[in-house]
Amino acid sequence: MATDYIFEGWLGHSPEAVKGKMEWGAFEPKKWEEDDVDIQVTHCGICGSDLHTLRSGWGETPYPCCVGHEIVGKAVRVGSNVKDIKVGDRVGVGAQARSCLQPDCPECSEGMENHCPRGNVNTYGSVYPNGEGKSYGGYADYNRTNSHFVFKIPDGLSSEAAAPMLCGGITVFSPLKHNGCGPGKKVGIVGVGGLGHFGVLFAKALGADKVVGISRRISKKDAVLALGADAYIATEDDKDWDKTNARTLDLIICTVSSSNMPLSQYLSLLKVNGSFIQVGAPDGGNLPPINAFTLIGGGIKVGGSAIGSPADIKIMLDLAVEKKVTPWVETRPLSEANQAIIDLEQGKARYRYVLVNEKHA
Amino acid sequence: MATDYIFEGWLGHSPEAVKGKMEWGAFEPKKWEEDDVDIQVTHCGICGSDLHTLRSGWGETPYPCCVGHEIVGKAVRVGSNVKDIKVGDRVGVGAQARSCLQPDCPECSEGMENHCPRGNVNTYGSVYPNGEGKSYGGYADYNRTNSHFVFKIPDGLSSEAAAPMLCGGITVFSPLKHNGCGPGKKVGIVGVGGLGHFGVLFAKALGADKVVGISRRISKKDAVLALGADAYIATEDDKDWDKTNARTLDLIICTVSSSNMPLSQYLSLLKVNGSFIQVGAPDGGNLPPINAFTLIGGGIKVGGSAIGSPADIKIMLDLAVEKKVTPWVETRPLSEANQAIIDLEQGKARYRYVLVNEKHA
Repeated sequence: MATDYIFEGWLGHSPEAVKGKMEWGAFEPKKWEEDDVDIQVTHCGICGSDLHTLRSGWGETPYPCCVGHEIVGKAVRVGSNVKDIKVGDRVGVGAQARSCLQPDCPECSEGMENHCPRGNVNTYGSVYPNGEGKSYGGYADYNRTNSHFVFKIPDGLSSEAAAPMLCGGITVFSPLKHNGCGPGKKVGIVGVGGLGHFGVLFAKALGADKVVGISRRISKKDAVLALGADAYIATEDDKDWDKTNARTLDLIICTVSSSNMPLSQYLSLLKVNGSFIQVGAPDGGNLPPINAFTLIGGGIKVGGSAIGSPADIKIMLDLAVEKKVTPWVETRPLSEANQAIIDLEQGKARYRYVLVNEKHA
Repeated sequence: MATDYIFEGWLGHSPEAVKGKMEWGAFEPKKWEEDDVDIQVTHCGICGSDLHTLRSGWGETPYPCCVGHEIVGKAVRVGSNVKDIKVGDRVGVGAQARSCLQPDCPECSEGMENHCPRGNVNTYGSVYPNGEGKSYGGYADYNRTNSHFVFKIPDGLSSEAAAPMLCGGITVFSPLKHNGCGPGKKVGIVGVGGLGHFGVLFAKALGADKVVGISRRISKKDAVLALGADAYIATEDDKDWDKTNARTLDLIICTVSSSNMPLSQYLSLLKVNGSFIQVGAPDGGNLPPINAFTLIGGGIKVGGSAIGSPADIKIMLDLAVEKKVTPWVETRPLSEANQAIIDLEQGKARYRYVLVNEKHA
């Protein structure tokens, strides 16, 4: 069946694209299957992953690549196997477009599709395993994704708020939820940017007793407290910050990753039995060295977490409505996507850019 | 009050002591307090820590030093403040001789004395904080320790079995217990020696569905299965062992630590949400590099654990009686302690040496 709409978007053709050199053009979406949904894109958040992928920072990207995996729009075509979405629904897509979804898959069968090692397909920059083509993201007019990874956006949540939750939000919500964030707990969020500001918002929404924003400079303090954090640590401006705050936190979510971040000092903030969960990954992925005595003496853990499962995305969206979670978003016209990624790279976003497709919004 | 017995033991006077050059001599025990117990030593296990300390491998040792922190013997003097121990009881001491024990200590007040950062005193090689002197261990005729860290040895457990549990046993029992080892779980033990063989024994005693011994050479396989392990992986002899066994384990306890151990491959054995707990620490403490993508992609954690709390030691001893946990121990005469540490260093122990004090046993 032919469609009466055309899949076009901003395409990166080489690592140069990250310098604001994406080019608008048509692309061939994945082969249609009756589990799929076509989405007329109205909004798409800009995620740091988009930049890593455009520059082939996490491995060679299969150009041409249309990035963007914080997609919100309108369902315009719905496969016959799809039960819970109908044409016209406001829906969203996050960073994952498919997993194997086999009943005998240990991950998919237990609600951990985001860790399925078999049939994982990212929303953009992946090649489908069975000849269905490549995946293309949301800096575009249309998107096609398997319905298992398409979420109805609840009323009460604006599209520009919902879009960045679908990757940025869930990336921090999932480890908060799975590591006991809630009443009685004290939680630190390292790096208060696109991901980290969601960390502060969702840690509060989950009811943590105390949420501490941790970043380098004191200049960010007022903004982080205004977001809802109860305290702030400036690691380059507060003297002896690690000693003053030693063993005060049950959980730390780290949204930055650099081989020269003060990891041992971050770890010293954890109480016994505390966990430090890394969600940010630099090009290359190297973490600073970890000393066995730091882990043993503190009785602590260092872990990682990748986006979140479809079930957790739904829980997050409902919580966002219930607790009125309002991310700090700046909208940018989709037509100016090249300038927006340059601005993000330069750290200008406060805290998340969302592209608005003027043709559809 | 003077005692009618003399504190004498094997003393290390320099890093050379580790080469079998400990010298028998008298030492001044900590100043007596009415919370203390004097123990006539009958048995003392030999722990790898003894060697690290004798050679100043974990920092400068305050020589002279009498090592040994897997002590069993008879209470011969009991302070007036001590409630649950009486003269004549068979008792034991592990690696910790004191913590701050203050009611407002977050660790001591919640049963985590082993992680108290304030008043921790090791059973040997530490200096007491308030002028009570130094701590001396169990390669000796007598030992003096605060009663909070002196444990009655239950009937049904031999002294040579109980002694090495007090450090070697609890070091693996505690992370097994606190990381969910039990029915429904599959557990790996890396390194099957003094610590690791306890890992196999206690993981089985706790009811894990499957316990996998992991060591370098296939030659150890039969012995590890005979201990009770359900399977064995030889990392230098089994081809593609990491791929064959990928994502099969809920928990791994690692009793070895080397900057060139195949840590990333060990981590690949963990299921999503699995934990890898390091209990071994090399001189210096450096772990192999950990890549953020390994943690993030796997949704796993790397942690550490240090010995165990007094409460956990009591639980372990009772479980050992109930489940008839029988460590593989070789007894050696205390008079031959120098030869025994040389033999341990050369990897001859199968799996734990226990010194027997012929004068008291």
